[in-house]
Amino acid sequence: MKYVEFDASRPLDIIPLGRACIDFNPTDINQPLSKSSNFIKYVGGSPANIAVGMARLGKKSGFIGRVSDDQFGDYVIDYFKNDGIDTSHIFRAKNGEKLGLTFTEILSPTESSILMYRDAIADLTLDPSEVDEDYIKSAKALLISGTSLCQSPSREAALKAMELAKKTNTVLIFDIDYRPYNWKSKDEIAVYYSTVGKNSDIIMGSKEEFNLMEALMVDKEEDDAATAARWHKFGAKIVIIKHGKQGSTAYTNDGLSYSIKPFPVDCLKSFGGGDGYGSAFLTALMEGWEMMDALEFGSASASMLVSAHSCSAAMPKMEEVKEFIRQSKEKYGEMVARG
Amino acid sequence: MKYVEFDASRPLDIIPLGRACIDFNPTDINQPLSKSSNFIKYVGGSPANIAVGMARLGKKSGFIGRVSDDQFGDYVIDYFKNDGIDTSHIFRAKNGEKLGLTFTEILSPTESSILMYRDAIADLTLDPSEVDEDYIKSAKALLISGTSLCQSPSREAALKAMELAKKTNTVLIFDIDYRPYNWKSKDEIAVYYSTVGKNSDIIMGSKEEFNLMEALMVDKEEDDAATAARWHKFGAKIVIIKHGKQGSTAYTNDGLSYSIKPFPVDCLKSFGGGDGYGSAFLTALMEGWEMMDALEFGSASASMLVSAHSCSAAMPKMEEVKEFIRQSKEKYGEMVARG
Amino acid sequence: MKYVEFDASRPLDIIPLGRACIDFNPTDINQPLSKSSNFIKYVGGSPANIAVGMARLGKKSGFIGRVSDDQFGDYVIDYFKNDGIDTSHIFRAKNGEKLGLTFTEILSPTESSILMYRDAIADLTLDPSEVDEDYIKSAKALLISGTSLCQSPSREAALKAMELAKKTNTVLIFDIDYRPYNWKSKDEIAVYYSTVGKNSDIIMGSKEEFNLMEALMVDKEEDDAATAARWHKFGAKIVIIKHGKQGSTAYTNDGLSYSIKPFPVDCLKSFGGGDGYGSAFLTALMEGWEMMDALEFGSASASMLVSAHSCSAAMPKMEEVKEFIRQSKEKYGEMVARG
Amino acid sequence: MKYVEFDASRPLDIIPLGRACIDFNPTDINQPLSKSSNFIKYVGGSPANIAVGMARLGKKSGFIGRVSDDQFGDYVIDYFKNDGIDTSHIFRAKNGEKLGLTFTEILSPTESSILMYRDAIADLTLDPSEVDEDYIKSAKALLISGTSLCQSPSREAALKAMELAKKTNTVLIFDIDYRPYNWKSKDEIAVYYSTVGKNSDIIMGSKEEFNLMEALMVDKEEDDAATAARWHKFGAKIVIIKHGKQGSTAYTNDGLSYSIKPFPVDCLKSFGGGDGYGSAFLTALMEGWEMMDALEFGSASASMLVSAHSCSAAMPKMEEVKEFIRQSKEKYGEMVARG
Repeated sequence: MKYVEFDASRPLDIIPLGRACIDFNPTDINQPLSKSSNFIKYVGGSPANIAVGMARLGKKSGFIGRVSDDQFGDYVIDYFKNDGIDTSHIFRAKNGEKLGLTFTEILSPTESSILMYRDAIADLTLDPSEVDEDYIKSAKALLISGTSLCQSPSREAALKAMELAKKTNTVLIFDIDYRPYNWKSKDEIAVYYSTVGKNSDIIMGSKEEFNLMEALMVDKEEDDAATAARWHKFGAKIVIIKHGKQGSTAYTNDGLSYSIKPFPVDCLKSFGGGDGYGSAFLTALMEGWEMMDALEFGSASASMLVSAHSCSAAMPKMEEVKEFIRQSKEKYGEMVARG
Repeated sequence: MKYVEFDASRPLDIIPLGRACIDFNPTDINQPLSKSSNFIKYVGGSPANIAVGMARLGKKSGFIGRVSDDQFGDYVIDYFKNDGIDTSHIFRAKNGEKLGLTFTEILSPTESSILMYRDAIADLTLDPSEVDEDYIKSAKALLISGTSLCQSPSREAALKAMELAKKTNTVLIFDIDYRPYNWKSKDEIAVYYSTVGKNSDIIMGSKEEFNLMEALMVDKEEDDAATAARWHKFGAKIVIIKHGKQGSTAYTNDGLSYSIKPFPVDCLKSFGGGDGYGSAFLTALMEGWEMMDALEFGSASASMLVSAHSCSAAMPKMEEVKEFIRQSKEKYGEMVARG
Repeated sequence: MKYVEFDASRPLDIIPLGRACIDFNPTDINQPLSKSSNFIKYVGGSPANIAVGMARLGKKSGFIGRVSDDQFGDYVIDYFKNDGIDTSHIFRAKNGEKLGLTFTEILSPTESSILMYRDAIADLTLDPSEVDEDYIKSAKALLISGTSLCQSPSREAALKAMELAKKTNTVLIFDIDYRPYNWKSKDEIAVYYSTVGKNSDIIMGSKEEFNLMEALMVDKEEDDAATAARWHKFGAKIVIIKHGKQGSTAYTNDGLSYSIKPFPVDCLKSFGGGDGYGSAFLTALMEGWEMMDALEFGSASASMLVSAHSCSAAMPKMEEVKEFIRQSKEKYGEMVARG
Repeated sequence: MKYVEFDASRPLDIIPLGRACIDFNPTDINQPLSKSSNFIKYVGGSPANIAVGMARLGKKSGFIGRVSDDQFGDYVIDYFKNDGIDTSHIFRAKNGEKLGLTFTEILSPTESSILMYRDAIADLTLDPSEVDEDYIKSAKALLISGTSLCQSPSREAALKAMELAKKTNTVLIFDIDYRPYNWKSKDEIAVYYSTVGKNSDIIMGSKEEFNLMEALMVDKEEDDAATAARWHKFGAKIVIIKHGKQGSTAYTNDGLSYSIKPFPVDCLKSFGGGDGYGSAFLTALMEGWEMMDALEFGSASASMLVSAHSCSAAMPKMEEVKEFIRQSKEKYGEMVARG
């Protein structure tokens, strides 16, 4: 059964809206960031990673966002173009705002932290006037990253995009993507997450992220099924709740649910998996795959990502994911992730 | 038929949320403001006026807002207390923010303008943490003034109040109350007005205000009935669309509509009528009156206000409105406003 | 002996730089401001008052400042023009900044306080680019109000004017005019007051104001003579230190000092005297009067001001001050203020 | 002849005040920054480099500044401690401000540019309250970096330090160190540079920097000797005017001047030389060397720096500079830099 209908006549597959930034990952890892002295620069930011990930998997990605008017902004646009991503709606910061930076501290394969430069940053200056109805209407789906909601005017740009997606019958995907950095309070998070959540067709997030979204709706945490039911009632068709290494479950609005687990890999870092998961799952969904196959595909990409040094650069191609699944099943059994 | 159910067990009747400020109205009027030299100070601000108006009509008003921590803030709180309004949820500005000021220019009975002091103003610093679920649950209805949405953190405080009204089954009234001053763009207005509009039981505004609210939903202006139907579909029970001197119409979610006209009076100024209308109409609604009687009552109060020098100070008592209606009907006929 | 040489060939006598704002003084006085309900509007702000005061006394005043782009800004410019003040270098705020407001609380003839609106205010947006060398060179003296130093960009505009006064040999007068409102710290006050103080020909202030200016120079308060000597050493020719009702003393850079006392009057309010003093003293100095005569003239104007309802509107004409002195001497003796 | 007297009884030799930040220099150079992908991190910022440089040369350095409260802030403090620099007056940012970043673009040995992260940056939040008289009095000299003047509250902190240096007879060194990034206008630069310049014992800068400093004092650019004479008149004892590869000249307040040229080296990058020059010259001055010897020593360090990959890390020790001079003279002749 198809839970979400994508309009095949639209030229673009997906438009992520939100931040593109730069990750600086140290090469001399497994020590505090203050000691690391050598860094490699990568394109980063969850919606940017998803644009790249889906492009690598054969989808036509667009993007709505702002980048810096400097060499780092050039770098992002060049990188996107190189992957065939449409960059016609990536704008330049007008007042010297810079690209967000994320310096990664990889203390061990399971402990990592990030040092973010997120003040006076280009992506959060995205202006509502730059969100264009025709562009949104040219895509099968719009993906709003929750981080775009953390500050004005990017917040209003995302909310405008949401309204235009509703108006133009564009599938609306909400990737909650919680980053504590720029938010002012739990109340602020709750009102904006829930505003977008109430209008979305697909919602993806960890249980902690769903808790943030419904903090003003329930007095105490409910179980996953109750949470999913709440958002189905508001109109969501697919609600994906993630539990890290314990795996994740997709709840569909027919009352069914589908669970998947990670593939066994040697972790290098504890982040990046979510964007691999999202880009591969959404690609499979657009391909019309069965729900369990789509989830397995997402899980495989996630596992490939956490064992790589970067997020964007390591995004795999279709054949690479398939091969990874084939090898994993050969080694660990057919049900390795579906167990 | 009762369109909206108010929970009779709740001690407070109405909690307006938003600004309380000061109006300085010149006594030497009918000339440019630059020439006026003598001013009388009144409590002002639409939600403050409604709190006062409903209190004068016998309702128990509360209030959620912030006032300055100075003599003008004292003035507002003293004034409210004197009218029996509950001031337990009026907070003081913490960083020297001042009370908003409105200097009125009354060039003629039909031409007036205002000079507003609305930067670094107390009401817009209302913090989400100051919005309390128990307080909202203690009232039959919460009224959100659209002006409270124009800037953070007041914006998030209003949105939190909206969520809590939904959670606690408190009737939600949206008084659009458009003031151009602090808004940054039409897009910003549209996304926030529509967010509250989608969640409201009663929406009151001029046709221009409804156009602002649905600017991202329609390509060109629709007629009043279509507009009302849109918001009924989102869940509104009563939609009131005003056309100034041409009168106003209440559209109910059973497909009916009820129209009223102003009473004939000698206008002194072209503002203040809306808050008289709102406070009297809502009072009548809570009293369980027939819709046409409630509208007539609202219209009478509006007419009384535009012929007075102030907004808050001139808010009439129940008997005064009734007497005004009686006299008007005697003079102009029973159908004077219902024509 | 002439302590300061004014260039007689220059068309303007004085250019005060700084704020013009509006005073709202209650007519129903001797009660808290929260109770007062009727207000009269006057032009206010120390440098504006001095411009008006000197114009009334026959001097040609200019002005460097910014006013709001609204009816209140119109009011100030019209008022200045009416007194023959050159308004060619009064600029309009560009981003909606408003005129500063001062609501006066007159609890009794000796107790008064003020409630100021000083955020997002026009005068403090004066930009350095608006300070013009030719304009400064066209005046005998430039008067910098210390309040103009409290915030950028007005601060840099004042410092630029100071440099240009030095470059063009324009007499530089520093009226310390301390207002606590916008300053961030005592250190900030000390560095900017002392920067202007070190470059000034005439410095006028209360002892408390001089203490603020030299807070980073001395470990504990020194006596008036030591304070005056310090600023003479930096280059000041006349240092006037005021002690309110105890009178004031002018210290000249030849080691002499001249003391004056207030004239006996019925005080209505405890402010406004300083601007009367400053405008009358400076006028007399420009007229070449003896120091004691100039001080007596300043003191007389100060006494006239504190017994009037306004500051600007009550600024006296030459003959009025002279008549006031004549009557006072007739009543209280020739040495009434010189005692 | 000794132009400047240093108080030998004071435990610290120098306290630079201003920014410590991080330089990220690419290893894959000679291409646009957008293409470079591998970066090495170094401590950077002119006053930080001078603190390190003088410490390497055997002087006891302190520091007044703010760093971020994160791993990068840790890095700077650890690095300083490792060089024996007193870090007791390095404070942590309180509101999440980050360390400034400088990404270097090295297009060729003669063309380089920088991409700076300088918004919401720790060093510019240095508060006047953190500038302590006793600490300044414990040092022979205070060095103010002009960049610390570009924004409040760091600006007022630097001006307070200047006043306290005057009060405590601490030698005041002004390193103009112009960076266009945070300044708002030429007027702003001129008023603050000249305020510090008027109070300094030693001023070091390029001719372009002196032009910025005296922009409100002269109508057109004057020759170096006239410029130096102007600042001697305000009180400076040594004025050093630099002309890049053409060398530099020290003007002393006895009317003499001393010129030096760079040593021949293979340039790797076109920056970093100034801090080598400053730290070595000031060290030699404190050692009581002859002026020409001090300049030669500064020039040698400068030449060593421009041929190295970093600024701070490459700061040489006393013996290394001496050996560099010895080798250069052996190769190019005794007068290689004094020509």
